[in-house]
Amino acid sequence: MEQHQHEDWLRKRKENKASRSVESIFEGIQKHDRFALSAGITLIESQLESDKPLANELIRKCLPLSGKSRRIGITGVPGVGKSTFIEAFGNVILNQGYKLAVLTIDPSSATTGGSILGDKTRMHTLSQELNAYIRPSAAGSTLGGVARATRESIYLCEAAGFDVILIETVGVGQSETMVHSMVDFFVLLMLAGAGDELQGIKRGIMELADALLITKADGGNVKMAKLAKASYANALHLFPPKENEWIPRTEICSSLTHFNLDEVWKISDEFFRHNISNGWIERYRSKQDVNWMKETLDELVLSGFYRKPGFEDNFNRIKQAISTQKMSACEAAEELYSLFSK
Amino acid sequence: MEQHQHEDWLRKRKENKASRSVESIFEGIQKHDRFALSAGITLIESQLESDKPLANELIRKCLPLSGKSRRIGITGVPGVGKSTFIEAFGNVILNQGYKLAVLTIDPSSATTGGSILGDKTRMHTLSQELNAYIRPSAAGSTLGGVARATRESIYLCEAAGFDVILIETVGVGQSETMVHSMVDFFVLLMLAGAGDELQGIKRGIMELADALLITKADGGNVKMAKLAKASYANALHLFPPKENEWIPRTEICSSLTHFNLDEVWKISDEFFRHNISNGWIERYRSKQDVNWMKETLDELVLSGFYRKPGFEDNFNRIKQAISTQKMSACEAAEELYSLFSK
Repeated sequence: MEQHQHEDWLRKRKENKASRSVESIFEGIQKHDRFALSAGITLIESQLESDKPLANELIRKCLPLSGKSRRIGITGVPGVGKSTFIEAFGNVILNQGYKLAVLTIDPSSATTGGSILGDKTRMHTLSQELNAYIRPSAAGSTLGGVARATRESIYLCEAAGFDVILIETVGVGQSETMVHSMVDFFVLLMLAGAGDELQGIKRGIMELADALLITKADGGNVKMAKLAKASYANALHLFPPKENEWIPRTEICSSLTHFNLDEVWKISDEFFRHNISNGWIERYRSKQDVNWMKETLDELVLSGFYRKPGFEDNFNRIKQAISTQKMSACEAAEELYSLFSK
Repeated sequence: MEQHQHEDWLRKRKENKASRSVESIFEGIQKHDRFALSAGITLIESQLESDKPLANELIRKCLPLSGKSRRIGITGVPGVGKSTFIEAFGNVILNQGYKLAVLTIDPSSATTGGSILGDKTRMHTLSQELNAYIRPSAAGSTLGGVARATRESIYLCEAAGFDVILIETVGVGQSETMVHSMVDFFVLLMLAGAGDELQGIKRGIMELADALLITKADGGNVKMAKLAKASYANALHLFPPKENEWIPRTEICSSLTHFNLDEVWKISDEFFRHNISNGWIERYRSKQDVNWMKETLDELVLSGFYRKPGFEDNFNRIKQAISTQKMSACEAAEELYSLFSK
């Protein structure tokens, strides 16, 4: 066998093997095998160029089986008790007979390589349940990369038969709007009396919430939680009505005593019944997908442009011209564009 | 003379005439002639392709004379009394011996063609002052176009010798962050007791403010204004410190009785003295210009890509493939990109 024939044969064997592995992961996912699901998500998270077509193939296979879950986002500032809430609320969901997957988006894992959400042991009880699957955020990637992986992990979890998917975000930076853009129902956890300015009002998150839960309503905190509920309910009332006509709900609850967690599930149940029957969820998801496609395309187009040979030198030269008032910012942009758009 | 020679001659004559007109506008601006300034801003606002190189030429001439003013942004929800504030505060500025230009950014002028800020007679006293120049937002353009024109009008006003430039925004949509991106000192007007959720906290505007003024502090309102001042001062305190180490200030004032308007001027004066001496203003403006250049370039690159022949048909085809779950959003973006990036 000649050299190039041998290389060809090696490459084909590798491709066949890889393709067989995608096929076996997909078969496992269809059989609700959580090890196959984990292997699939790892493939999606892979930074290797050679893994990308395989990940795309796997997603394409899973897509027709996806879309049947309730996608619920959970956010709130650090300290509000997101993981204890998910642990307690997750058990309520499991008790209803549903299969639950928990995914997390954590920008700190992108910047530090470590993850403050990545510790599975935080959700101790839940992680031991047969019908629960917990997957922390991929580390060592960009926030955009983490968002992409999480979005595509949803399809895999759905193909693996999970009925409810909780997506947790650590609640800083842009992670909330990212999670909001991939879920149907968005829950904001709040602490009573911690000062609104610390809790997302200033970041425009309250407008996105479908339900606002005052956590830690137990013991001596109940009274303050009730006051906070009334005041938030009043504030929510002032926002413009949502497209799906859902009026955001406010409730108090406790992850410690499980107080009102059934009520929270009822609220989400009402939301889904209302919005599945009127066709909103389907339209909304399709809109989310198209937006996601546009954002991804924007990124590809811009990074393609900014990576053109010689761009950086010219960019720095023109930055200099702006700083020294030789050129207006607008004219500078036009010059850079005409230089590199050919 | 042959036909093409004649056309050539006509074109050159036209170009010479246009160029002479830019030269004469620039001369007028240097002589602080407000009619020349108005003609210059009209040229900048022009939608005609043939006017663009002339506008660029005029801006290039004005740039070396620009940069000496104090650029102050004024925002607040409709009804907070922005124009009466500018009328009253403008007189305080004029009394200090400064020359004042007032520019406005009004997104409604972009969408409806009319302008709720465009009525010069609203600032009745100010518009009759020799040292004041009031220019409403250009109508019939996009918000981006209005922002560009306003930004470049700043250079012209500065070249025409104005010491203080107030930029007013109607306070809805994206107009506040746009104004913030072109001024040094950003003032948020607030009403006492109107509910925070209505007044920009939810839109993340409070974080941008260098000064927060409770307006209409006259008659029976003074007590409530003082309470609001204390509560906002407390809230502002919780935001992370600004890069220039300026601690945002809160004050009450009245445009009706002129109560505390001198104090407001003192605050802005303190801001500028602090931030000119430490070199921050210069660095900040240069950063603003570079950001503006990047944003403009992004827009040019994306609109260039999306206008490629055949793009729209393919975009619609792929949107269909996403809606019918034949393709993931990410894969769709990659396909569109590889089709049109050649």
